[in-house]
Amino acid sequence: MTAPAMIHHQIAPFFVSRDGRCRVQLWLAAALPGDLPTGVFLRLEPDNEERLIPMELIAEAGRFRVYAADLIPNPAGPLTVYAFKVLWTDRQWWLDAAGASPRMPLRERFFRANLVDATPDWVPDQVFYQIFPERFRNGDPAVSPQSGAYAPRDDGPIRAKDWGEPIDPQRPNSEFYGGDLIGVRQSLDYLQDLGVTALYLNPIFTSPSVHKYDIEDFEHVDPYLGGDHALADLRVAATGRGIRLVLDAVFNHTSDTHPWFNRWGTHAAPGAYQDVAAPYRGAYVFSDSADPESYQCWQGSKVLPVLDFGHPAVRDYFLDGVDSIVRRWLRPPYSVDGWRIDVAHMMGEGTGARNNARVLRLLRRAAREESPRAYILGEHFGEATRWLQGDQEDGAMNYYGFSFPVRAFLAGQDVNYHPIALDAAELDAWLTDARSRIPYANQLCQLNLLGSHDTARCLTVLGEDRFLMRLALLLLFTYPGVPCIYYGDEIGMTGRNDPYNRACFDWDEDHWDRPLRAWVQTLAGLRREHQALRRGAYQTLLAAGDIFAFARCLDSEVVMLIVNRGTAPCAGVRVPLAGLPGHAMNLGVLLGECPWGLGGDTLTLDLGPKEGLLLRGELGEAAT
Amino acid sequence: MTAPAMIHHQIAPFFVSRDGRCRVQLWLAAALPGDLPTGVFLRLEPDNEERLIPMELIAEAGRFRVYAADLIPNPAGPLTVYAFKVLWTDRQWWLDAAGASPRMPLRERFFRANLVDATPDWVPDQVFYQIFPERFRNGDPAVSPQSGAYAPRDDGPIRAKDWGEPIDPQRPNSEFYGGDLIGVRQSLDYLQDLGVTALYLNPIFTSPSVHKYDIEDFEHVDPYLGGDHALADLRVAATGRGIRLVLDAVFNHTSDTHPWFNRWGTHAAPGAYQDVAAPYRGAYVFSDSADPESYQCWQGSKVLPVLDFGHPAVRDYFLDGVDSIVRRWLRPPYSVDGWRIDVAHMMGEGTGARNNARVLRLLRRAAREESPRAYILGEHFGEATRWLQGDQEDGAMNYYGFSFPVRAFLAGQDVNYHPIALDAAELDAWLTDARSRIPYANQLCQLNLLGSHDTARCLTVLGEDRFLMRLALLLLFTYPGVPCIYYGDEIGMTGRNDPYNRACFDWDEDHWDRPLRAWVQTLAGLRREHQALRRGAYQTLLAAGDIFAFARCLDSEVVMLIVNRGTAPCAGVRVPLAGLPGHAMNLGVLLGECPWGLGGDTLTLDLGPKEGLLLRGELGEAAT
Repeated sequence: MTAPAMIHHQIAPFFVSRDGRCRVQLWLAAALPGDLPTGVFLRLEPDNEERLIPMELIAEAGRFRVYAADLIPNPAGPLTVYAFKVLWTDRQWWLDAAGASPRMPLRERFFRANLVDATPDWVPDQVFYQIFPERFRNGDPAVSPQSGAYAPRDDGPIRAKDWGEPIDPQRPNSEFYGGDLIGVRQSLDYLQDLGVTALYLNPIFTSPSVHKYDIEDFEHVDPYLGGDHALADLRVAATGRGIRLVLDAVFNHTSDTHPWFNRWGTHAAPGAYQDVAAPYRGAYVFSDSADPESYQCWQGSKVLPVLDFGHPAVRDYFLDGVDSIVRRWLRPPYSVDGWRIDVAHMMGEGTGARNNARVLRLLRRAAREESPRAYILGEHFGEATRWLQGDQEDGAMNYYGFSFPVRAFLAGQDVNYHPIALDAAELDAWLTDARSRIPYANQLCQLNLLGSHDTARCLTVLGEDRFLMRLALLLLFTYPGVPCIYYGDEIGMTGRNDPYNRACFDWDEDHWDRPLRAWVQTLAGLRREHQALRRGAYQTLLAAGDIFAFARCLDSEVVMLIVNRGTAPCAGVRVPLAGLPGHAMNLGVLLGECPWGLGGDTLTLDLGPKEGLLLRGELGEAAT
Repeated sequence: MTAPAMIHHQIAPFFVSRDGRCRVQLWLAAALPGDLPTGVFLRLEPDNEERLIPMELIAEAGRFRVYAADLIPNPAGPLTVYAFKVLWTDRQWWLDAAGASPRMPLRERFFRANLVDATPDWVPDQVFYQIFPERFRNGDPAVSPQSGAYAPRDDGPIRAKDWGEPIDPQRPNSEFYGGDLIGVRQSLDYLQDLGVTALYLNPIFTSPSVHKYDIEDFEHVDPYLGGDHALADLRVAATGRGIRLVLDAVFNHTSDTHPWFNRWGTHAAPGAYQDVAAPYRGAYVFSDSADPESYQCWQGSKVLPVLDFGHPAVRDYFLDGVDSIVRRWLRPPYSVDGWRIDVAHMMGEGTGARNNARVLRLLRRAAREESPRAYILGEHFGEATRWLQGDQEDGAMNYYGFSFPVRAFLAGQDVNYHPIALDAAELDAWLTDARSRIPYANQLCQLNLLGSHDTARCLTVLGEDRFLMRLALLLLFTYPGVPCIYYGDEIGMTGRNDPYNRACFDWDEDHWDRPLRAWVQTLAGLRREHQALRRGAYQTLLAAGDIFAFARCLDSEVVMLIVNRGTAPCAGVRVPLAGLPGHAMNLGVLLGECPWGLGGDTLTLDLGPKEGLLLRGELGEAAT
């Protein structure tokens, strides 16, 4: 039993708000005469009870019949879920966010629209670039830390090193090369030339370590990164170029050197660690009040005592106070454009992640009150579905729904660098699983990435195979969500896990992989030119063996990507286009060189090993 | 790529609580020499962060290697989720509640254990029988309502009719035949002879309609059903036979004749409908305070004004007050064994179903405080996953996870009596979807049913095909969950939707379908004898075309059901048993007559049209 072609475009012009209501459309492939559907329904549950709304036939568009109905918003919460039910005399088919089904699907597969919490409209248009500030560029050696600049960290005393000197894997947190925010500002030409429009900076607040996930002063930019002034200067310069800035919000824990926790110096007051009566003792969780060592810490690391968001002072200071940390950096002169929330899923009240959703909703509300367009980006290595329903985060660092499936497909390794065997069908199933569980607006705000400071670099995982790296980048720039390049990936930097993935950016252009960088520039340019890549509806076209192909459609534009990850050429690959909302016409190549042809509703092409093709065309009605 | 045989038995002896911890086991089919797994992990997320716990090889059991590890309970809530990850040198496989996967599955598919909220241990051992009291038996004509006994209902004045007189479809709510609780008590011999051990009664509190979902006095059993005394008498008689009693909790709305809502009689106080200042005005929701007609009512029915559980008096009266309705009927002399919660998903605060979970948790807590073994059973026509995680309901009327898939498979009709085409593979997928999303303890407390007062009778939907009805009953008594027979189904009563499905029970034995009743008796007996049918782990054996086969395993016992729903005979059906946790031995027939044989790990049988076979055996190690 083959499912009929059914499409629900979740975005304009298919999803139009009208008089505060939302009209949804179902496009159904025109049936054979005598096999017209006997009923087309929008399936809702406004008060948790099934409601079947008959849909109206409003148009015949080429090979599709178009049906429409209005959503009834869920009165009890921001999320409205729906699916489509189509009846014939002897069968039924459902369309949900994960595809077609001959029976009512589980609710988890329903389309989701958050009609209350809007995502920031600017996000899907960006090309992000992630910078690990200590290792990107030394803009002013005068502010670089000298040996002994900070108190010794868990892996030894602070040591200053020259830019590019080899990394000591025994000293990942305490060896400083002197990168700073001044260097970031000085690199804006470079970044703009690459096509970057937004920066995500790893933590920049005062902290004794290289990574700065152990913050001891949330109110100041680390002086060794240039201090508050350097951030304000960067803000001005970036704004002048239309470049956005997102900072790292590390609120799950503090450094053990934070004054709430620890006394440093002779005259300082005792912290929670020293004194059960210390003013912020309740900001941390001690399992045994008599044992100062019994404090809860992140992943067993004693330098990272975990904060208790059940404590009013913690919520007030970080989240909802009038001058909270979340708010103050969203204000001038810094006016950052959003927060990337470190281990967002772990923040909670008391032990564990209790009431995590409440904490994140509070964070979101404070940020949005301060800056209605602030981007709330969660860090999640695992599946982030729960946080991406619109009321907590706009998007996530999309490891689960993009990086890991793509790395599994191209490199055969999973999040733990364990072997994984995945064909294109399984890749598609994985991507669909992740995508279909969140509202479309949030899909477009997902921060897609190939790697980060927390993973081995993508090129390394791919065995330094440049062809596979190009395919990975093709997927990054065309898949729904916002692409984010990890600093240096574009010039071919390699490196296994921490600390090797945090090497100094190599500013010697002779060392660059110039073709790879040009590839990134081209992709960024294509994304800028083609709105379908930024906001278009997604449709898988083919997923079998080594071949994966999908389309992005917006209005009359269609962009299609076809990749062969295999080491063997694939001649005569046939990609069916009959499910597109119109006939693909006036096709042209955006990127790639393989032979291809269009016959009827089938695209035929000969793909070489590890080769991809990006096509662009228009959707219209066939001449015949 | 074929998944290896992997089993996780979720119940004793495979899931053992030990020192407050829970040990889980993974049974993995012994690999070929040289293809041993390189890693076996239990995957948890105690603080929402991935944790991979290496599992210990503890035994080799026949063709399986058995690995074990301890769960780390989720500190932030009652539900602990987990899955298994198995590594080889070139691939990985995961096992979750829905099956095997070559990659990390969505969290929604993980196994779930609620380590806080226990289900009542007695529930899985029951055979339930649902009684619509007005139509089951007239035990005392002296208490039967006469014409005009109540105020006229929405479909006309009250009219008394003789037992078995034809139903007037225009008057479903106002024609009374005189069934009562005295009649139920008088029928206990009949019910016990049938094999019934528990009764679920449709509403019995004072109400002017036949169905009594419009209650005007929650503190008294309707006098025309025999009053409070009749319930107390029934309780005593039922207890004497070990028969349980579950009542219908209709708390989402009251009758429009309830004194909180409406003034009836000259001297009564004005209700919420008459007076904005009435004491219980806030118990209802008026969208326009100036318009008495603007009250929220259930599904648009003006006789059913909806209650607002945001109002403290409503919560107090029904749920958490010291003498709340939930509590009082759980107390002697009524001591009911549980509540079936009408439209549980719709109960809420203010408009819609806002904070529905809070309402149900409150209901559960009050009931359990009063009676720790009370069964909390939700009514849900749709998917009930959200309510079945252990902290709200123990089980649901399992329409979504049992009735509808089975009726679709056997009758080709869905919940709306729309056509649906479903083969055994899709049946299996549907059952698995529903089953896998809830903890195993709750799966065993699901109230499976073939029909109810809210559906057409199953036999009618099956076109009065007795062979198919036998298959439906076979599935009902062998599938995980508690079987519930709708009164009269066992004697072959037919009837389309309300009011035809609520006809008077026909006590003339000459009209009975005696073979069908004997079939039910036999099935109830088999369930009593074989604990594997009540508590055994479930495993699909074969699901293709018209053939559906599964096993229930407990300790060394295995029971297997194989059915052919097709109109053609199926000769040489081969059912693979290699995935069972041991070799099936000493097989014998429990029910059915078709030829069968066991060769190695394959069961072969010749099934006639619409035929089923129930086998029982032991699990052991093969002689060779």
